[in-house]
Amino acid sequence: MTAMESVGEFRFECGESVDDLRLAYEAYGEFDGDNAVLVCHALTGSQHVSNAPRSEDHEPVTGENDDTGDEDNAVDGAATTGVQTAGQARAWWDDVVGPGKAIDTTEYYVVCVNVPGSCYGSSGPPTEGPDDGPWGTEFPPVTVGDWTRAQRRLLDRLGVGRLHAVVGGSVGGMNALDWAKRYPDDVRRVAAVATAGRLDTQCLSLDAIARRAITTDPDWNGGDYYGADRPNPDDGLAQARRLGHVMYLSKASMGRKFGRRAAGRGAFDDAPADPTGRFFPYREVESYLDYNADSFTTRFDANSYLYLTRAMDEYDLAAGYGSDAEALAAFEGELLALSFTGDWHFTVEQSRALADAAGDVDVPTAHHVVDSDHGHDAFLVEPESVGPPLRDFLRDGVDGRAIRDEGEDDDPDGSGIHSGGPDRAPVHASLFPG
Amino acid sequence: MTAMESVGEFRFECGESVDDLRLAYEAYGEFDGDNAVLVCHALTGSQHVSNAPRSEDHEPVTGENDDTGDEDNAVDGAATTGVQTAGQARAWWDDVVGPGKAIDTTEYYVVCVNVPGSCYGSSGPPTEGPDDGPWGTEFPPVTVGDWTRAQRRLLDRLGVGRLHAVVGGSVGGMNALDWAKRYPDDVRRVAAVATAGRLDTQCLSLDAIARRAITTDPDWNGGDYYGADRPNPDDGLAQARRLGHVMYLSKASMGRKFGRRAAGRGAFDDAPADPTGRFFPYREVESYLDYNADSFTTRFDANSYLYLTRAMDEYDLAAGYGSDAEALAAFEGELLALSFTGDWHFTVEQSRALADAAGDVDVPTAHHVVDSDHGHDAFLVEPESVGPPLRDFLRDGVDGRAIRDEGEDDDPDGSGIHSGGPDRAPVHASLFPG
Repeated sequence: MTAMESVGEFRFECGESVDDLRLAYEAYGEFDGDNAVLVCHALTGSQHVSNAPRSEDHEPVTGENDDTGDEDNAVDGAATTGVQTAGQARAWWDDVVGPGKAIDTTEYYVVCVNVPGSCYGSSGPPTEGPDDGPWGTEFPPVTVGDWTRAQRRLLDRLGVGRLHAVVGGSVGGMNALDWAKRYPDDVRRVAAVATAGRLDTQCLSLDAIARRAITTDPDWNGGDYYGADRPNPDDGLAQARRLGHVMYLSKASMGRKFGRRAAGRGAFDDAPADPTGRFFPYREVESYLDYNADSFTTRFDANSYLYLTRAMDEYDLAAGYGSDAEALAAFEGELLALSFTGDWHFTVEQSRALADAAGDVDVPTAHHVVDSDHGHDAFLVEPESVGPPLRDFLRDGVDGRAIRDEGEDDDPDGSGIHSGGPDRAPVHASLFPG
Repeated sequence: MTAMESVGEFRFECGESVDDLRLAYEAYGEFDGDNAVLVCHALTGSQHVSNAPRSEDHEPVTGENDDTGDEDNAVDGAATTGVQTAGQARAWWDDVVGPGKAIDTTEYYVVCVNVPGSCYGSSGPPTEGPDDGPWGTEFPPVTVGDWTRAQRRLLDRLGVGRLHAVVGGSVGGMNALDWAKRYPDDVRRVAAVATAGRLDTQCLSLDAIARRAITTDPDWNGGDYYGADRPNPDDGLAQARRLGHVMYLSKASMGRKFGRRAAGRGAFDDAPADPTGRFFPYREVESYLDYNADSFTTRFDANSYLYLTRAMDEYDLAAGYGSDAEALAAFEGELLALSFTGDWHFTVEQSRALADAAGDVDVPTAHHVVDSDHGHDAFLVEPESVGPPLRDFLRDGVDGRAIRDEGEDDDPDGSGIHSGGPDRAPVHASLFPG
C-alpha cells in the first residue's frame, strides 16, 4: 500500500517552489542500514512496483490493491483526474521485485517513489494546489533532476543514506543515471535499463506530437479541466497513448501479434467515424491501441502526461558537464547498462554509448544486450531476461555471473564477425567490498 | 499544366459508382506508339511530376504553375478544400523526369494522373458531387486497384495501349505493382520504388492514429466542413502530417538535421500552449514539423487524407491470389525493386521479399538497394541514387548497367559475409526485344 510523506518546501530546477512537496511511495522488506534499493518507475508507472509485503514502518494511505490485469507496460486502477488521487496500480515489476525474485525483498529494502508531476499521489498537476483546487498547469515544470532530488529528500526522512543500488527502466533509467551524476557518493550500483543519456530526435518528435494531441483537444481547455462538471481531454490523451504503444513495441512484435488481421466480433469497438470504414475493416492492431488508450484515460492525467514527457525529453545526462563521461566521472559505484535489440525507443547503440562513456572515466561498467524483438516493452515483459543480470549485479556488481558485457567477447559466436562493441576489460575489483 | 479528362461512369471496387469520373493529369513528351511511361505519385503527391514541357494534345485547365519550394516530399500551392480544385504543385520529381533526365521526356511520353480520392483535380471528396456541393464523405471509398483501373481508362482515351513502363514510389509503387498484377500484358517494365506488397503493422498503426487525429478534430464535423463559413480540421490534418514526416525520415537523418537544438529566433512559432513551455524550449525539429504541417493544411484536404491512407493501408498485392508470387505470375514484363537502407516506412526487407516473389515465378527482377540514411524521403531527395538505375531500367530492363541486383553478388565486400539476399541469377534476355 502506498504511503505518503511530506518533504517540506521544494524548489524545482525551473526556479519555482511548492510549500510542501508530498511524495507517494512504497517500501518493501526491512532496512538493515546497507541494503536499500531505489527502483525508479517509467513514464506512466507508479510507486506500486511489487505485490511483495510492504515495510511496516509507515501508515498506508490508500485502501485495497487493485490488481486487475493490464496487458501493457503501465499501471491501472484508480481514476486519477481527481484531486490527491493516490492511484493504485498493477504492480508493474512484480516478476522482478519480491521475495526470492531478482530484486529480492527478503534481502533488500526496496523503495519506489511516485515522481513529482505524476498522478499517483505525489504532488503534481491533479493534486491540491495553494488556491483551493488542483494545481493544474500552475504546478512547476519538473525535471528528472527534480525527481532525483525529491527521492533523496524522502530517503533522508526514511533514514537511508547511501543506497546499495538504484535501478530504473526507460525514463526511470535516466532517473537512475541522474543519481550517479548528482549523488556520485551515494550509490553503490546503478542499473540503467532500456534507457539512454538522452532521447533521440525521432522520439523527441513523437513526444511533441503526443503533447500536441492533448493540447489541441478542446477539452484540455488550457489545462483547466478538473472537476466533475468538465470533460477530460480523453481524445487527446488517448492519441498520446496510442503513439506511446507504437514506441513501446517493435515492427517485429507488432507484426507477430497483430499482422494485418481484421478485428473479430467482441473486439473493443470504439471504432472512429472513418467514412471509409463502411468498406474497410477495423484491424486488430487498432483495437489493441484503442482498448489500451481508452483504459489509459481512466487512470492517467493529461497534464501529468505533458509534464512527464517534458521531463523525459529534456533530460540530458551531459548537461552541465559537456559529456556523458564527465557527468559520470565522479561516480564511485558500478554501472550496468541493459539494452534490448528490438528497442527503437531507447536503442542498443545509445546504451553502448553510455557504457563507453562510463568506461572512459573508469567506472566499472557492463553493457548487457538482450536479444529480443519485444521492443521497448521487453524490460517489462521479459523478466526472465532482465531478472538474472539484475540479481547478479545487485549481488556481485559488473562481475555478476549472469552479466555478459558485450565488450568481454568480441566474437561471441565464433563467426569471425566482431560485435562492434567496445573492448572493455571486465573489472574484477568492486570499489565496494561485498 | 494540368489537363482534365472525363472517363465516364466508374464503378469502384467497393461497389459504389460515380456517374462521371474526372481525372486530372499531366503528360510530357510525344507519344510514338511505344514509349509511354506512367508515373504514379505518392500519397499526397499530384500529377505535377515535372516542369518539363507538356504535351500539346490537351487543353490546360489551370493557370500558372506555382513552383514555390517545399522541402518535403509533396506538393504545394493551391488551397484544396474548395470544390474542383485542380491544385498546382511543386514538380515533385523534376530532378528525375524531364528532358535529358533519367525518365527522359524527349524519349518517353510520360503521363501522371492524380488518383481518384485525392484533391488535385481528380474526382474525390472535395470535388463537386451529385447533390450540388462537394462529395465529402459520400465519395466512394477508393482502392489502389481503383487508381490502376482509372489510369487504364484514361490511357485508353489518350490512345495508349501497352505501356513501356510504370514507375512509382511509396504507395505509387503499390500502384505500379498493381499494374503488373491487374494488367500483366500491358506493361513492359515496372519500377517499384521504396514500396512493398503491403504495409506492415507498425505503419498501419501510425496511419490509423493519423486518421484518428483528423476524425477527432471537432472541425472535421463528420467530414462536412466544406464552404467558406466552416473551419477546416487543420489541427487534425496537421497532426497527421507531423506523423507522416516522422515516417518519411529516419532516426539518423532526423538526428543529423535537427539533433536536440532549440529553435532560434525566426523559427516557425506556432508553438503549442504547452504549460511547461515556460521553462522548456521549442525545438528545431518541432519547428520543422509544425511549419510543414501548417503548410500542408493549406494544400491538402483532410477527407482526401483519410481516403488515400485507407487505400494505402488496404493494398495487398497478394489479395485474390494467395501470395505475391502468384499475383505476379502472369506478368509478362520485368520488375525493378528499388529500396533504401534507411527507410523504415517501406523497408529493404519488404522490397527483397517482393523481388524474391517475382523471381520465384520467373519474372526478370532486380532488387537494387541504395545505401542511404534519408529514410523514406530518399526516393525524392536522392535523384542521384534513383535516377541512374531508373534510366537504365527503362532502356535495358533489369540488365541495365547502373542496376546492381543484390542477388548478383552474395559477398559484395569480399568479407565472407553473405548479404542474405537471394541468389537470383541475372536474366539476360528481355521478353520484350528492345
